[in-house]
Amino acid sequence: MELLKQRILQDGKVKPGHILKVDSFLNHQMDIPLLDEIGAEFARRFAGVPVSKILTIEASGIGIAAIAARHFGNVPVIFAKKTKSKNLDGDILTAQVTSYTRGTTFDIQVESKFVNPGDHILILDDFLARGQALLGLIQLVQQAGATIAGCGIVIEKGFQDGGELVRRTGVRLESLAVIKEMSDDSLVFAD
Amino acid sequence: MELLKQRILQDGKVKPGHILKVDSFLNHQMDIPLLDEIGAEFARRFAGVPVSKILTIEASGIGIAAIAARHFGNVPVIFAKKTKSKNLDGDILTAQVTSYTRGTTFDIQVESKFVNPGDHILILDDFLARGQALLGLIQLVQQAGATIAGCGIVIEKGFQDGGELVRRTGVRLESLAVIKEMSDDSLVFAD
Repeated sequence: MELLKQRILQDGKVKPGHILKVDSFLNHQMDIPLLDEIGAEFARRFAGVPVSKILTIEASGIGIAAIAARHFGNVPVIFAKKTKSKNLDGDILTAQVTSYTRGTTFDIQVESKFVNPGDHILILDDFLARGQALLGLIQLVQQAGATIAGCGIVIEKGFQDGGELVRRTGVRLESLAVIKEMSDDSLVFAD
Repeated sequence: MELLKQRILQDGKVKPGHILKVDSFLNHQMDIPLLDEIGAEFARRFAGVPVSKILTIEASGIGIAAIAARHFGNVPVIFAKKTKSKNLDGDILTAQVTSYTRGTTFDIQVESKFVNPGDHILILDDFLARGQALLGLIQLVQQAGATIAGCGIVIEKGFQDGGELVRRTGVRLESLAVIKEMSDDSLVFAD
């Protein structure tokens, strides 16, 4: 997605530890017209694929998924929670996720009643690096016996193994910008 | 907002401890057309008030704010973070927030560069109960020397003191549904 790549080159900042800061437009401050273009692009890529709900994970995925839903017939958006909440009860779908960035392991959770066997779930998130969060979301959908329509990612760090791990599950993965390599003074996209 | 009140009566569930579960449409699964109506109602209530950015707090406020932004000329949306992240650097606006629900105290944070003295900030969130998160967001904006356009809340628990505390600061507060009292088998709205 050319518009997105240009924006990453213009406003993204590479930090030590392979961290790409895109917080001025994607995951701290959100550029709403850009999110709308991102949603439209996901809809183009998944054209013809049935989608009954969108699943994402708090926090950065939520804005992306909410705006994208408008391009998928206004389907409901569910966000998986990373912390136990008094608000969560009933049957819970859960998966363990390791965050290499934070050096922690945590459970992600969705109330079972929101994901049903007849659902076609599109999973959206902002970043794909080691793939642990995305694999966790895939597990949640599989636990519920629902169909995975596919996974849509805004920025994939193609030099890490997450994309490979997700594709190996057989799930269709569409990343709008894939970074082949990055260092303090350069950032190269795949293709 | 009548549509919202009807939805709360239809799908909300009151749990012990004055907890109102609205997770089937607002803060776990999100009903996007409803969020769009909510955004439109905020825009009606704040018509004529300059708004250059919307500020909310992760996680439940993000979807509401992202969709609402479309009704405020697509202004950028910033979400305050509740946890320290490697992605946060530079100058930080911070305020301490006590969560009575979780029994914890934590810092909320926004990178200073996103809130400037010339900004007119509309603060949006899903719930207002004891008002601590909202007062923290107000503090962040005041630290930056920006103008507060107002606060928009989807559901205010009118029987708790948050609304009074916020109004006492002189900031304009618009709540789309104010609950006067609630118990296991009844829920009464104000006005």
